[in-house]
Amino acid sequence: MPLKIGLLGFGTVGSAFAEVLAASGADAAITHVFNRNVARKKDHPRATFVPANALWTERVEDVISAANVDVVIELMGGLDPAEGWLRTALAAGKHVVTANKQLIAYRGAELFALAAKNGVQLLYGAAVGGGVPMIPGIAQGLSGDRMRRVSGIVNGTCNFILSSMEGGADYGEVLKEAQAAGYAEADPSADVDGFDARAKLCILSRLALHAEIDPENVPAQTIKTVSAIDFAYAKELGCTVRQVAQAALAENGVTARVGPMLVPRTSPMAFSHGTQNMVVTSGRFGGDVVFSGHGAGGPPTAVAVMSDVRAIAENSAQVRLPSHPMQVSGDVTAPFYLRFIVADEPGIVAAIAGALAKFEVNIDSILQHRGHPDARLPFVVTTEPCSSVILEKAVAEMAKMRFMVEPPLCLQILVVDDKDTD
Amino acid sequence: MPLKIGLLGFGTVGSAFAEVLAASGADAAITHVFNRNVARKKDHPRATFVPANALWTERVEDVISAANVDVVIELMGGLDPAEGWLRTALAAGKHVVTANKQLIAYRGAELFALAAKNGVQLLYGAAVGGGVPMIPGIAQGLSGDRMRRVSGIVNGTCNFILSSMEGGADYGEVLKEAQAAGYAEADPSADVDGFDARAKLCILSRLALHAEIDPENVPAQTIKTVSAIDFAYAKELGCTVRQVAQAALAENGVTARVGPMLVPRTSPMAFSHGTQNMVVTSGRFGGDVVFSGHGAGGPPTAVAVMSDVRAIAENSAQVRLPSHPMQVSGDVTAPFYLRFIVADEPGIVAAIAGALAKFEVNIDSILQHRGHPDARLPFVVTTEPCSSVILEKAVAEMAKMRFMVEPPLCLQILVVDDKDTD
Repeated sequence: MPLKIGLLGFGTVGSAFAEVLAASGADAAITHVFNRNVARKKDHPRATFVPANALWTERVEDVISAANVDVVIELMGGLDPAEGWLRTALAAGKHVVTANKQLIAYRGAELFALAAKNGVQLLYGAAVGGGVPMIPGIAQGLSGDRMRRVSGIVNGTCNFILSSMEGGADYGEVLKEAQAAGYAEADPSADVDGFDARAKLCILSRLALHAEIDPENVPAQTIKTVSAIDFAYAKELGCTVRQVAQAALAENGVTARVGPMLVPRTSPMAFSHGTQNMVVTSGRFGGDVVFSGHGAGGPPTAVAVMSDVRAIAENSAQVRLPSHPMQVSGDVTAPFYLRFIVADEPGIVAAIAGALAKFEVNIDSILQHRGHPDARLPFVVTTEPCSSVILEKAVAEMAKMRFMVEPPLCLQILVVDDKDTD
Repeated sequence: MPLKIGLLGFGTVGSAFAEVLAASGADAAITHVFNRNVARKKDHPRATFVPANALWTERVEDVISAANVDVVIELMGGLDPAEGWLRTALAAGKHVVTANKQLIAYRGAELFALAAKNGVQLLYGAAVGGGVPMIPGIAQGLSGDRMRRVSGIVNGTCNFILSSMEGGADYGEVLKEAQAAGYAEADPSADVDGFDARAKLCILSRLALHAEIDPENVPAQTIKTVSAIDFAYAKELGCTVRQVAQAALAENGVTARVGPMLVPRTSPMAFSHGTQNMVVTSGRFGGDVVFSGHGAGGPPTAVAVMSDVRAIAENSAQVRLPSHPMQVSGDVTAPFYLRFIVADEPGIVAAIAGALAKFEVNIDSILQHRGHPDARLPFVVTTEPCSSVILEKAVAEMAKMRFMVEPPLCLQILVVDDKDTD
C-alpha cells in the first residue's frame, strides 16, 4: 500500500515536492492537495506530477481529517492557522512533515509531545537549511557528542545580499535584485532584521544544545545598517561580513545572538556565497563539523521534505533526545567592531577612547582610511573581547557625542577557535 | 534497563568511546570488553570510564555470544576474523556498530541482509568520515534526492601529507611526521596508495548512488609521485593537490577513481587542511551539499560510534534504500594535468604534442617555469577534457621517449560545476 500524502500548499516548495516525489520511486503518492484557488493551481506546470485521481480542495478539513491520508505535509508557514491544522492531523494519528520554522521554533515542544502521545512522527528537516541536511545530520549523526555551540548562516536572503555587497553592490540595489529573483519578500523585515534566522537558531539550539529557548529573547540585529565601507574595513581586518546566528551553552543557560558579524577569512562561513546556507556545530569530543549547500529554493527544500517522507515510509524514527527550557542571554563576550561616521574635529579619538576606558573596554586597533570627506568621515575601532552588554552602554554614550553624523555601528567579530577535541 | 554494550577493541577509538559514553548520560553501559593483553589495557587512563563490574576478556566468544549483551561494537578492523564475529553477533540477535570500512565496503550487502533477517541494526557511521556525520547525513537527510555524484577527501593521512606539502614540506619528511603523530601507519600503503579511500568511496556509492561496486575495480593512484613542483604548477593553474575519491552515475554503471587530483581553489575541497575530511554530494534536485570536519582521531570517531548507539537506544532505524550491483569503470572524461621531467633537447614539445594529437587529445596549456637544470627540466601540459583511458595510452607512449628522466605524472583536474538544480 503506498503511503498516502496530503499536501497543504502547492506553491514553490509544494509543486517541487510533487516532482521530487514522482522522480523518487518511493512507494508514496499525493492523494490530496489543499490550496486556495485550486482551479489556478491545477494549471501549474508541475501539477502534472500530481496523480490524476488526487483530490484538489480549498477546504483544509478535507485533508487533515481525511481517513485515507497517512502523512500531512504542511508548506503554508506561519503560526496560525497552521498550528491548529497540525494538531488536528497529529491527533488523528497522521504523521506530519513541515517546513514551518516559526511553528517548530515557537511551539515545537508541545507539538512533539502531541506527536509522541499519538505514536506518529513530526519531522521538519526543511525548516532549517533548506536542502542542507542539518536537522537529520545533527539528530542522527551528532547525538553522540556534547555540543557547546552552534553557529550558522541560515538565511539565504541575507547571505545573498551581504555576499553581493562584498562584491561591491549597494544594499538597496541588491535588495531589489533579490526581490526580483524571488529571494526576498516585498517586506524583507523577517529576513534582514534577523527574525527568520532567530527562529531557525532556536530549532538548532533545541537539537544540538538540548535547550528550549524563546525566540523572542534572542537579540536580533538588522543588516540594513551595514554599508560598503564596512566591507572595506572588514577586508583590512582579514574578514568579511555575514548574517550569523550563534548559540552557545553558558554557565546559567544559553547565550544567543543573530546579526551581521565580522567573519574571518579563515572561517568556512566566509566562503558561503549567494543563497548558500551553512551550519557549524562545535562539540566537546568531535570538534567542529560543517554542513553547507543550497539553503533555499523549491527543489532543494523539497529534497528535505522528501527525505522526511522517506524516513516515515521506511519506519525510521528520528533520534530525539530530551531538551530543557533554558534562560537566554544576549550578553556575549567577544571582540567587537565599531564603525563611526563623524564630522571631523579635534579630540574625537580621545572622546571615543575615553568612553571605552570608562567601561573598561580595551581597544585592539584603530583604522582610518584616507579619501573621505571631513563632514562624513568613517573610522573604525576594534575592541579586545568584552561584554556586549557593557559595550552597548559605552556605544550609547558615544552615540550622543556631537560629532556623530549617524549612530555608531557595532558588529561582533567571530573568533575562529576550532579547539583541539578532548 | 540500560543497553548493554560489548566492546571489541580498547585502543584509540574504543577507549575514547568509553569516555564519550560516560559523558553522554545515555541509558547504556559497557558490560564487556574484549582485547588482547587485558591486564595492560585495564591500566589505560581511560579504563576508568568502564564500569567496575564490566567483564574484561581475551576470548571474543565471551562477548559476541554473551546472552546479556545487546549491542556489539567492533573496533578491531580488517575483514577476518571480524566478519565471523559480526555474523555470530547478528545471528544471535545483537545489534552491531562498527567502524570497519573494509568489512562494510567488501561484505556490507550480505551483512545488512543478515541484520535485517534477524531484526537488528548494523550501523557504521564511523566507517567513513570519522566524526563527520556523512553516513547518517546522507542516509536520513538526502534520501529524497537523486544523487548523481559523490566526491570526497576521506583519508586524513593523505590530506595531512598533501596539505603540508602545499605549505612547502617534503613528502618523505611529512610522512615521517605523520607517522610520529600517529596519523600514518608504519606501512603507509593503505593510505597513500588509495586503498583506504577506495573502500570508503564504495560505502558512499552504496548509500548515495545506490550502487554496489567492488572496491577492487576502482582504480587507485598513489600520492607518492606528487612532488613540490606539482604544487607550484597547480598554484599557477588556480588549484591545489588533494587525494580525492569520486564516483558518479554513468550510462552503464558507475565511473569511479581515487587518487591525487588538481582541486580548483573555488572548490570547498581546496580548503580541507590537515586531517580534515570532506564529502560533497551532488543531487539532481538539491545540488551540492558539503559535510566536513574532523575525520580522524579517537574522540571524533567515538562520537560517530556513540551516535549509532544513541540511534539503537532510541529505536531509530536508519533509512536504507535498496542498492544494486553495478559495473565500475575508471574511464573518466575530464581535463588532465601532465607533468614531465625531461633532459632538455630540441623537439620535446613537438614529440609530446604529437603523441597527444595521435590520440586526439587537445592541449589546453603548456607551462614551463625557469630556473631548473637542463638535465631535469620539469614542464607541464594540461589537456582539454578527454577519456582517461585514451590519455593513459598516450602517456604510455610518451613514457618511452628517450628524453624522459622519470615517468610522466598524470593527474585529473577537478571541474567545479555546481550546476543549478532542476
